[in-house]
Amino acid sequence: MQTVIIGSGNVAYHLAKAFVLNRIPLVQIFGRNEQELKNISGELNIPYSKENLMKADLYIICVSDNAVEDVSKNIIINDCLVAHTSGSLPKEILVGNYRKASLYPLQTFSKSKNLDYSKIPFFIEAENNEDYKIIFDIASKISDNVMESTHEKRKYIHLTAVFACNFVNHLFARAKEISDSQKIPFDYFLPLIDETVQKIHEIDPISAQTGPAVRNDKRILHLHEQLLKDENLEIYKTMNHSIQKMYEL
Amino acid sequence: MQTVIIGSGNVAYHLAKAFVLNRIPLVQIFGRNEQELKNISGELNIPYSKENLMKADLYIICVSDNAVEDVSKNIIINDCLVAHTSGSLPKEILVGNYRKASLYPLQTFSKSKNLDYSKIPFFIEAENNEDYKIIFDIASKISDNVMESTHEKRKYIHLTAVFACNFVNHLFARAKEISDSQKIPFDYFLPLIDETVQKIHEIDPISAQTGPAVRNDKRILHLHEQLLKDENLEIYKTMNHSIQKMYEL
Ligand SMILES: NC(=O)c1ccc[n+]([C@@H]2O[C@H](COP(=O)([O-])OP(=O)(O)OC[C@H]3O[C@@H](n4cnc5c(N)ncnc54)[C@H](OP(=O)(O)O)[C@@H]3O)[C@@H](O)[C@H]2O)c1
Ligand SMILES: NC(=O)c1ccc[n+]([C@@H]2O[C@H](COP(=O)([O-])OP(=O)(O)OC[C@H]3O[C@@H](n4cnc5c(N)ncnc54)[C@H](OP(=O)(O)O)[C@@H]3O)[C@@H](O)[C@H]2O)c1
Repeated sequence: MQTVIIGSGNVAYHLAKAFVLNRIPLVQIFGRNEQELKNISGELNIPYSKENLMKADLYIICVSDNAVEDVSKNIIINDCLVAHTSGSLPKEILVGNYRKASLYPLQTFSKSKNLDYSKIPFFIEAENNEDYKIIFDIASKISDNVMESTHEKRKYIHLTAVFACNFVNHLFARAKEISDSQKIPFDYFLPLIDETVQKIHEIDPISAQTGPAVRNDKRILHLHEQLLKDENLEIYKTMNHSIQKMYEL
Repeated sequence: MQTVIIGSGNVAYHLAKAFVLNRIPLVQIFGRNEQELKNISGELNIPYSKENLMKADLYIICVSDNAVEDVSKNIIINDCLVAHTSGSLPKEILVGNYRKASLYPLQTFSKSKNLDYSKIPFFIEAENNEDYKIIFDIASKISDNVMESTHEKRKYIHLTAVFACNFVNHLFARAKEISDSQKIPFDYFLPLIDETVQKIHEIDPISAQTGPAVRNDKRILHLHEQLLKDENLEIYKTMNHSIQKMYEL
């Protein structure tokens, strides 16, 4: 089983590293960014190329969503399996006479941040059982959490991740803006944030809700609104309204 | 130094436990809820009462915000220091001829959840340096992170916590609602959530932002809006708008 990873960004790097750490054969990293390819190739000891895409059984395209379609056209062999790693694109976005699949790792990747790959859920979609099994076997060497997912289901996985990860991070950014404005070190909030997240490992977040909105504490809600403006005020009102709707207050 | 804790809720329980674990003398837990008082008293081996408030040097009032004022009236001794634990009330809410203070622990407490007290930031306010030192010395036995905070500053601390803790938890609740609707186990998102939070221990959340809004990926933003309705759609639009404003997109 010869595999090539296409791309040299965050996902390409971590996937390549996961291959190496789990001794899954990887014959090439292919991409357009020489410097990044060199870095990955140097660290992981895998050949790279900008021009000559090697013949392989499996290509995993890890490029920006809006480049997946174009990049997929570079694969001109027919007897191979091609997967992309996007959470939101259908496998049919891939253009070629090869077999198509998707392999979506549910995690947030940055090159500078080490990860425990064994806990990352991988969602797979393929055209038939054989192809599914090829990808399943590889992903299962990396992670304990590999499962099937249609494109329809993957859309909702991605959407859930936007709420639970992207929006949560943005709340941290807005919270830091507020604490910075008062010269309160944001680090002081890390134990509270850690505990908030630790809690939902044990308790359903719906039962774990605390704060003025769920207590329906109108005095505080009003006081807080006086302290906020612009986007922070909009977020404040929208979130409180949503909390009060959820708990029928 | 004789201390009494008033209340038998989450904060009263954890504060009493922190006293006992750090061998800080605690002479009584006083409250109105016999069953809860009995539980705490039994576990921590501290006398309790519903009727006879003991004479002490320091009273720490840990009752619901809207009961702090009323409960403070039960303290009829003048030569003592009284502190409440609310993040949003001024120390002047306390009614009596005693000296007034506030001791705000920045953490989310539930009785069922153990905590490492040494990492909890404590914010203190008192009328004079001597009183400040009394409370500072006690809090410093519990935690490494004790500092002064005016009522004005505490309001912003509390507000920051609402964004970084209460609203974050609500996003988890909304995310779970979306994943439940598709029968996707919410547990699958825990590694991603853990990583999102782990990241901001190392990177400023403003630099850590990922997702379709900061990429200005209009196709996905539009697709997601089709999948959402009601409060989830409102949150989606408000958060994306705020992200795009922050990054000037
Ligand atoms: N990051 C995550 O947390 C995450 C998680 C799950 C899935 N994904 C998915 O994984 C895929 C890759 O994401 P990523 O985070 O690794 O992206 P990234 O770090 O931004 O890297 C994007 C890669 O695509 C290349 N690229 C961009 N446009 C290209 C084009 N027109 N032609 C050729 N190459 C092009 C970039 O090359 P240059 O360096 O030359 O621009 C770079 O190697 C995406 O489908 C994404 O949705 C990402
Ligand atoms: N929970 C947190 O995460 C947290 C964090 C920092 C600060 N605080 C602050 O700490 C204080 C206590 O919060 P908590 O979370 O411990 O509250 P809690 O768990 O809801 O407990 C409230 C306590 O107040 C008592 N109480 C309520 N109304 C009363 C009244 N009218 N007269 C006498 N007692 C009354 C309750 O007695 P019953 O059981 O009989 O109702 C209970 O013992 C509040 O000021 C809060 O803002 C809380």
